[in-house]
Amino acid sequence: MKHYFLSLICCVAMAMPAAAQSWIWYPGDMDIWTGNRINNLRSERGSFYPAFWRADSHEQTVEFVRTVTLDAPEEMEIHVEGDYGVRIDELDYLFGMPGRFTVPAGRHTLHIAVHNSEAVPALWLKGPSVVSDTTWTVTNYAEPRRADTWTERDGSPTFPLPDLRPSSYRLPVTPVLPASVRREGRELFAEWQREGIGYLLLEGVRGNGRVCISYGESPDEARDSAHAYLTDCVVFSADSVTDLATLRVSARNGSDYRLACSRAMRYVLVVCEGDVTVEGLTLLFEMKDVRLSGSFECSDTLLNRIWQVGAYTLHLTDREVMIEGIKRDRWMWSGDAIQSYLMNYYSFMDTPVVRRTVWALRGKDPVRQHINTILDYTFFWFNAVYDYYLYTGDDAFVRRIYPRMQTLMDYVQGRLNDRGMVEGRSGDWVFVDWSPRDMSKDGELAFEQLVYMRSLQTMQLCAALTGNDADALRYGTLFGRLRGCILPTFWDERRGLLVHHTRGGIPQQEVTRYANIFAVLYGLLDERRSASVLERVLLNDSVMEITTPYMRFYELEALCALGRQSQVLDEMRAYWGGMLSQGATTFWETYDPKEGYPERLAMYGKRYGKSLCHAWGASPLYLLGKYFLGVRPVKPGYAEWECRPCLGDLKWMKGDVPTPHGRIHVEMTRKSVTVEAEGCGPGRLILGDKEVAVHPGERITVRR
Amino acid sequence: MKHYFLSLICCVAMAMPAAAQSWIWYPGDMDIWTGNRINNLRSERGSFYPAFWRADSHEQTVEFVRTVTLDAPEEMEIHVEGDYGVRIDELDYLFGMPGRFTVPAGRHTLHIAVHNSEAVPALWLKGPSVVSDTTWTVTNYAEPRRADTWTERDGSPTFPLPDLRPSSYRLPVTPVLPASVRREGRELFAEWQREGIGYLLLEGVRGNGRVCISYGESPDEARDSAHAYLTDCVVFSADSVTDLATLRVSARNGSDYRLACSRAMRYVLVVCEGDVTVEGLTLLFEMKDVRLSGSFECSDTLLNRIWQVGAYTLHLTDREVMIEGIKRDRWMWSGDAIQSYLMNYYSFMDTPVVRRTVWALRGKDPVRQHINTILDYTFFWFNAVYDYYLYTGDDAFVRRIYPRMQTLMDYVQGRLNDRGMVEGRSGDWVFVDWSPRDMSKDGELAFEQLVYMRSLQTMQLCAALTGNDADALRYGTLFGRLRGCILPTFWDERRGLLVHHTRGGIPQQEVTRYANIFAVLYGLLDERRSASVLERVLLNDSVMEITTPYMRFYELEALCALGRQSQVLDEMRAYWGGMLSQGATTFWETYDPKEGYPERLAMYGKRYGKSLCHAWGASPLYLLGKYFLGVRPVKPGYAEWECRPCLGDLKWMKGDVPTPHGRIHVEMTRKSVTVEAEGCGPGRLILGDKEVAVHPGERITVRR
Repeated sequence: MKHYFLSLICCVAMAMPAAAQSWIWYPGDMDIWTGNRINNLRSERGSFYPAFWRADSHEQTVEFVRTVTLDAPEEMEIHVEGDYGVRIDELDYLFGMPGRFTVPAGRHTLHIAVHNSEAVPALWLKGPSVVSDTTWTVTNYAEPRRADTWTERDGSPTFPLPDLRPSSYRLPVTPVLPASVRREGRELFAEWQREGIGYLLLEGVRGNGRVCISYGESPDEARDSAHAYLTDCVVFSADSVTDLATLRVSARNGSDYRLACSRAMRYVLVVCEGDVTVEGLTLLFEMKDVRLSGSFECSDTLLNRIWQVGAYTLHLTDREVMIEGIKRDRWMWSGDAIQSYLMNYYSFMDTPVVRRTVWALRGKDPVRQHINTILDYTFFWFNAVYDYYLYTGDDAFVRRIYPRMQTLMDYVQGRLNDRGMVEGRSGDWVFVDWSPRDMSKDGELAFEQLVYMRSLQTMQLCAALTGNDADALRYGTLFGRLRGCILPTFWDERRGLLVHHTRGGIPQQEVTRYANIFAVLYGLLDERRSASVLERVLLNDSVMEITTPYMRFYELEALCALGRQSQVLDEMRAYWGGMLSQGATTFWETYDPKEGYPERLAMYGKRYGKSLCHAWGASPLYLLGKYFLGVRPVKPGYAEWECRPCLGDLKWMKGDVPTPHGRIHVEMTRKSVTVEAEGCGPGRLILGDKEVAVHPGERITVRR
Repeated sequence: MKHYFLSLICCVAMAMPAAAQSWIWYPGDMDIWTGNRINNLRSERGSFYPAFWRADSHEQTVEFVRTVTLDAPEEMEIHVEGDYGVRIDELDYLFGMPGRFTVPAGRHTLHIAVHNSEAVPALWLKGPSVVSDTTWTVTNYAEPRRADTWTERDGSPTFPLPDLRPSSYRLPVTPVLPASVRREGRELFAEWQREGIGYLLLEGVRGNGRVCISYGESPDEARDSAHAYLTDCVVFSADSVTDLATLRVSARNGSDYRLACSRAMRYVLVVCEGDVTVEGLTLLFEMKDVRLSGSFECSDTLLNRIWQVGAYTLHLTDREVMIEGIKRDRWMWSGDAIQSYLMNYYSFMDTPVVRRTVWALRGKDPVRQHINTILDYTFFWFNAVYDYYLYTGDDAFVRRIYPRMQTLMDYVQGRLNDRGMVEGRSGDWVFVDWSPRDMSKDGELAFEQLVYMRSLQTMQLCAALTGNDADALRYGTLFGRLRGCILPTFWDERRGLLVHHTRGGIPQQEVTRYANIFAVLYGLLDERRSASVLERVLLNDSVMEITTPYMRFYELEALCALGRQSQVLDEMRAYWGGMLSQGATTFWETYDPKEGYPERLAMYGKRYGKSLCHAWGASPLYLLGKYFLGVRPVKPGYAEWECRPCLGDLKWMKGDVPTPHGRIHVEMTRKSVTVEAEGCGPGRLILGDKEVAVHPGERITVRR
């Protein structure tokens, strides 16, 4: 154990500590494998419902290699996930799968071959002077790489001990009793304080028969067993229990039964058939043990509740990987994930989950389709890598993922049209947003060119960062060229806005908010054009409104970027406050104040198809942190940062923004601003024309 | 069951029957998965010893799709390997993983999504008018394909019934008692009549302690527990048995224990430690249930024994896939496999194993390295596909594998040198042969160009066959161009032979047999050059001799092609007869009559490293069938064929050559030849200048 604690002490930075004892594997494989596992948890009315894009596999057979120089013979302890063989130098493999073996003194190369088709081949090894860590090489016998592992936010290994087997990584569970349980004949109806996800525990089950369960994010859903999105059914016989959703049969031990699948719920209806009875219910609540490092409080209690409910919504969807919602898909979606990451940088600063989700979304080479099959989601994937670097400064990760960025960009460029622009091709889903009315998806969408342009810029930056100068030049040129054509192609000077798309290079009349929003966010518009877009698009009710928190994220960000903070607060009060006024304990996938109950629960043609705990609903976390507390990194990992606080119509606000090195604390009233930073580099407090340097550890107060 | 038998009756041809009820899966996945499983069975002294090239994985998540039109509602019975969901049309998935479901009358599309990371996602489905068969589509959500299955030699499905789960496919076992068992104190030493492979059964085990086992292909090996290639060790305690090679722990039930791993053996030494005792031993012999359809008998009993031992050797290595030997690697090797296939066409005509091995060797796209990492083995892989087509006429298989041929050829062509020739690049193993003295492996080897040339010809033929006319033209041009440069580059007119290689385009002095042999076989040499090669290389003892049956296969074939049948018989008597005289019950990996015992057991620096049951040792099967019985297909699948029998120095011979449609029987004495063909197309009996037509079903006798 001595070694392990020593390593922890050495490595408080974000970068992966070279010398930390850990389980190790082939780069990205644990992320990809975990992503597959999570994507396969989706269920619809008790069915198995896999993701509809191709899933890459982990490497089945790998060899871990390390050369060591020992003063004396050393005994190694070894643990492996998979079948394995141990070879020293070019000598024979040792007998069987030894738990310990001795390496003679001198210089020797250890080879540990591992095969595992079901889970990721992984190694844990420990000797007096040698441990399994990321200095090892691991090869799939074609592409040798530096070994990979998972680390926590502080750089410490996630799997330091032999018993912490990577394949058994699961979120911890906590028993949570319902706020109320009503018994109605053969039925039990339970309600929890707020929405959660986990395994239902049936307590005090007696007799034989079927127990049918319908879960609900709303009471209507749980009570409507014929339409509830999530259902289960369990058959109790004298000595066995059969979980019909998974066909899992277990021996009947004791009187409690824990359901096989973790489900989202706030309400549960349990119906007993036959002579079976159930005494009580408990939710074994699955939730990641991650600390909320950001905070926000202000003079408006509604906004405070919005921030808290946003943080809870994000916490529920911040799991093994970032998922889009807990009830329905439970999948990783790249466009949703980039928003989760950004909210995360202003709340949990859970950086490991970002790395995992980015790898898992990307998968392996060759690229066969867009990420999640969606054109725009490929671009958001690129853009998320640069955001990650900017907020964390973790260039080691960028270096590891860069080869996958290259091959994905090659894929994109192999599908450009004659004018060097992107458009949907066979098999591509051009998503943009769920819109209340139809929008055109054919031809060159201005929105798609903008997010592609941003991806080229990301490639340029990451190429430079990883020392790929030729790439940086090439992507920089492509970026400049595309940037140069966007306004000439899509800007309608007469109407003072960007049109939605062109067909065969000819601009069409259709106008939507999307491209106009992103043109503002990516700094493409001068002051005159920005003002025009604000008036003629963003503040123009005749342009199709946005009803998803997904796209409202960008719309409100654009309004903030244009200095409309007070209006944004009003929008938050109306939109997110609207959800709260309807009893939300988590934020929703879409919200249209005009929709009544229970119609607003429907989506995708299903009565309860809408997700009521959807990560993209939590965007106030990001908006309040970045545009009100006003904190953002200027150099990667907050090596330099700035704070441009803005009260909007608030009397006061205070809060914390997490950084890789500590928090930045901001307090603001109408009279003064106080800023204090732990650990990070030099910052600047900017108030209008006034600019004050903030040194690490210092507490600066400025009167307005 | 009615349906199944009907299908069997419909499909006696090689082609996959469209309507046969069967388990189905994504194309090639069962072959690749099985190949991985087999390649991971290698063990060296109880170790796990995986293959050292990259293993592709099966598709983890797939969807099976079929549109049906039903007159009335039908109930479907469904069995799946993996987690699954069932969806009809665009409706919801059905609850759970239903064992039965009903499809309404009318036109509907069934969607069955399956996930399985450990084994291949597979489906078996049956309704009154719908069954799972190869008319289904299956997609990995990126590349939809026609569903795949395994069929037997007669076209019937290998997995017709729900209980015959593809992942549980194993060879049958038969108990075989040793010919003798000697007890020497705490040891048992057993000898079997001939070599075999399977699970050792320890019988009548009493008391506790360790039982250590060493296996041998020779008595020396089994007795030399410190060096035997295959070893096991089992610990018996009061209530459990631990198999140390696999770490498998099982409850101690009864007094017999079956070892966890199947091992090759003819001799076994069992050493008991502690107070454990073993009463007896049985080999649970694993052998494929495949009929020997070919035969050969002649006036020379030694040759008859050689043919029989060859057939037994091939039978032992013809398993789930064709492996190279049963003791050591137990891997699929492409260069070894092409010979196994050819021997197989003259003995077992086990065509399913050829399809499986070809797919398994090839794996998935992208190509990352040469097959088995060996340059020449990639070329033998191509050439095997055309051989398969020629002997079986199974164009359906060529159509399925052709896309993988294209991508592998793209890989080859991406690695040509400036002169359009192949040479070993980083990571490539240039093998050629195990030679008794060093040979150069750098530069352009004439041998490699020849096998590459043949691959281009194969591509041309298969492109034409599959209707890829542009490819056929392109590969035909490349073939012609390369064919045109071989003699100008490598033929040394002064010495009358092909030199071994060039460096930087300059011919070197070194001469080996390899290129000269293949130039004869591929018809590159006119009569004058052939005569020169025969005299100056093949019959010239100063050119490095060939000591592997692998390359002797081609050497003797070249001698046959040059009409030296009598000499070839003498070589067989000396070489294969030499092995028999040393007590062989199966043929060996290498044989050098000059080597004594026990030195001849050593190889790869290991005292018992040599494999004594090696598929490539069985080549007389091929040579006697093709060049003595003289039978060969002229059009694919024996649609036309010829018989050019040759007695050599024999008084008489008779035998059968299997074809996809029946056997061709040949009998020859010095006075007459009789030929009779079952089922196949028209044939010709050719005796010198004489040519006689042989019609199907007719028995033709010709006096000489």
